[in-house]
Amino acid sequence: MSATPVLLDYGSGGKAAQRLISELFVRHFANPILEAMDDAALLGRLRGAVVMSTDGYTVDPVEFPGGNIGSLAVHGTVNDVSMLGARPRFLTCAYIIEEGLDMNLLERVVRGMGEAARRADVRIVGGDTKVVPRGAADKIFITTTGIGEVILEPAPSGSRAAPGDAILISGSMGDHGLTILSRREGLSLDSGVMSDSAALNRMVEALITEVGDVHVLRDPTRGGLATTRNEIAGPSGVVCAVNETAIPVKDGVAAGCSVLGLDPLYLANEGKLICVLPENKSAAALAVMRGFSEGRDAARIGAVEAAGAKSRAGQVLLQTPLGGRRLLGMLEGEQLPRIC
Amino acid sequence: MSATPVLLDYGSGGKAAQRLISELFVRHFANPILEAMDDAALLGRLRGAVVMSTDGYTVDPVEFPGGNIGSLAVHGTVNDVSMLGARPRFLTCAYIIEEGLDMNLLERVVRGMGEAARRADVRIVGGDTKVVPRGAADKIFITTTGIGEVILEPAPSGSRAAPGDAILISGSMGDHGLTILSRREGLSLDSGVMSDSAALNRMVEALITEVGDVHVLRDPTRGGLATTRNEIAGPSGVVCAVNETAIPVKDGVAAGCSVLGLDPLYLANEGKLICVLPENKSAAALAVMRGFSEGRDAARIGAVEAAGAKSRAGQVLLQTPLGGRRLLGMLEGEQLPRIC
Repeated sequence: MSATPVLLDYGSGGKAAQRLISELFVRHFANPILEAMDDAALLGRLRGAVVMSTDGYTVDPVEFPGGNIGSLAVHGTVNDVSMLGARPRFLTCAYIIEEGLDMNLLERVVRGMGEAARRADVRIVGGDTKVVPRGAADKIFITTTGIGEVILEPAPSGSRAAPGDAILISGSMGDHGLTILSRREGLSLDSGVMSDSAALNRMVEALITEVGDVHVLRDPTRGGLATTRNEIAGPSGVVCAVNETAIPVKDGVAAGCSVLGLDPLYLANEGKLICVLPENKSAAALAVMRGFSEGRDAARIGAVEAAGAKSRAGQVLLQTPLGGRRLLGMLEGEQLPRIC
Repeated sequence: MSATPVLLDYGSGGKAAQRLISELFVRHFANPILEAMDDAALLGRLRGAVVMSTDGYTVDPVEFPGGNIGSLAVHGTVNDVSMLGARPRFLTCAYIIEEGLDMNLLERVVRGMGEAARRADVRIVGGDTKVVPRGAADKIFITTTGIGEVILEPAPSGSRAAPGDAILISGSMGDHGLTILSRREGLSLDSGVMSDSAALNRMVEALITEVGDVHVLRDPTRGGLATTRNEIAGPSGVVCAVNETAIPVKDGVAAGCSVLGLDPLYLANEGKLICVLPENKSAAALAVMRGFSEGRDAARIGAVEAAGAKSRAGQVLLQTPLGGRRLLGMLEGEQLPRIC
């Protein structure tokens, strides 16, 4: 296919838009609910309590090693729904496209989205396309919204970490963030560095059904592992004691971070989860995680403690290789804009 | 408040973003589900079948007589959910904001969104904020996704119009489209011209519970009344015979369209619906519509006919004031980009 640009009237609600929708989106997302082509999608009844989550994706560049904005927009929202102990079922997507975008690029994005949805076993049941004039957006933005059915009650929550719990991580930190940054800056890093973007819903479902008693699930996306402070330690009123050397970081990522002066614990991940559950479940949970390709580097990185003489509730304490303890603070500014 | 710009790190997932979310969004959208501040919202069980719809809003200008992009993003999605015979319950919103946007403008948009949601009796249960560098977006884009519970089965659908049905419209055509265009072009039109942006869910619920047997509900947004062809006549395999003089068009809109060479039947509406139901229900349905301020100009504009010697299935035939009949074609190109 030669480079055909997206035209303004592809987003008009008129004939050209109808063609774009039927020839591109419906083809890649094929399912009967979407094909009804109504203003809204009729999903039928949902079992159990419902969970809903939305995220806007503005990643720059739009394509990167390990995925593109389309697959990322599926993974991110599927994971957010999963983190509440739910089985993601349905997604909608809204595309905002800059006039003149290469149709081949758009097709790769839509294909990536369709494939990611099929792999995660969720259906894309509705969408919207707006084309804005050249210069009014940078290439393409996608917002996805997911709904799912709760399969674990009480739901895992950032407020349920308790002293005596283990803190597990499903794999290495910083892969997505470093990949995006290096692409954007035109840096050539170790060939092993690529985004970890992946759907975690199957892993979550296995943790829930095969292990159970999961207290907290979180995906350390923007802000990285360091957001644990605000998202777990703070809401639970506990101290998270993390062993720095136990945190998996790939050699290529560590090297890249070292060159660029970045800390992998603050970099975004798009296919990793933090799981907090009772210590006596920790071995079983690690075994389950390691049974998935996305979880082969899963590790126990620390434990939840009550606040004590040398710590305050809401703190994340990093035990350093030299035996010291330092506070893991939260990101104040923006380390990397348009990371997701 | 002086003009404070939105900074890049307001969308970072870090501390500044947390402050923006808690001080702006949570304040205006206040409800306990949102305040849980998890990655996803726990909605509880939904009664009946579930309907889901999403739309991206890129309207330019962001503020206009009759609303702003925030209120519009609530109304549009609430209406799309309603058109499937459902009661909208929950909304999520994803904001993509250009660095440097005036915080006062952002606050007016968020306030407009919160007020629109309260008036429509839907809860905003989750959201996302991304800030992109100056020039990567034009001010602000919002994507809303709504879910609701079906209250009418079988659901109204564009494929259920049947010969013998009446075609009703809840009010005048073209108000939103002409308002946006005139603002953008700096034209000063009749002071009565303003967007009709409004939530129609209460009207839809009254039509369903007080009249019943509703076959089709459609909101003629992008593409205007002319989209009836593809959205009703085509899917139902019928002819829609519409009396042109019965279509309400406000004097100011008619005058503005005349000056600008526009046809109000192709202009977007954001607070109007088309209702198709058996002729013997038509008087009762009109009475219900007229009981709402958004429906005071409701009118019966035509009837559904079987295809015949002088017509083909899928056609919309306009009966002109002079007694002729002309085809109402569908919009080919984009009449007005960024209308919603």
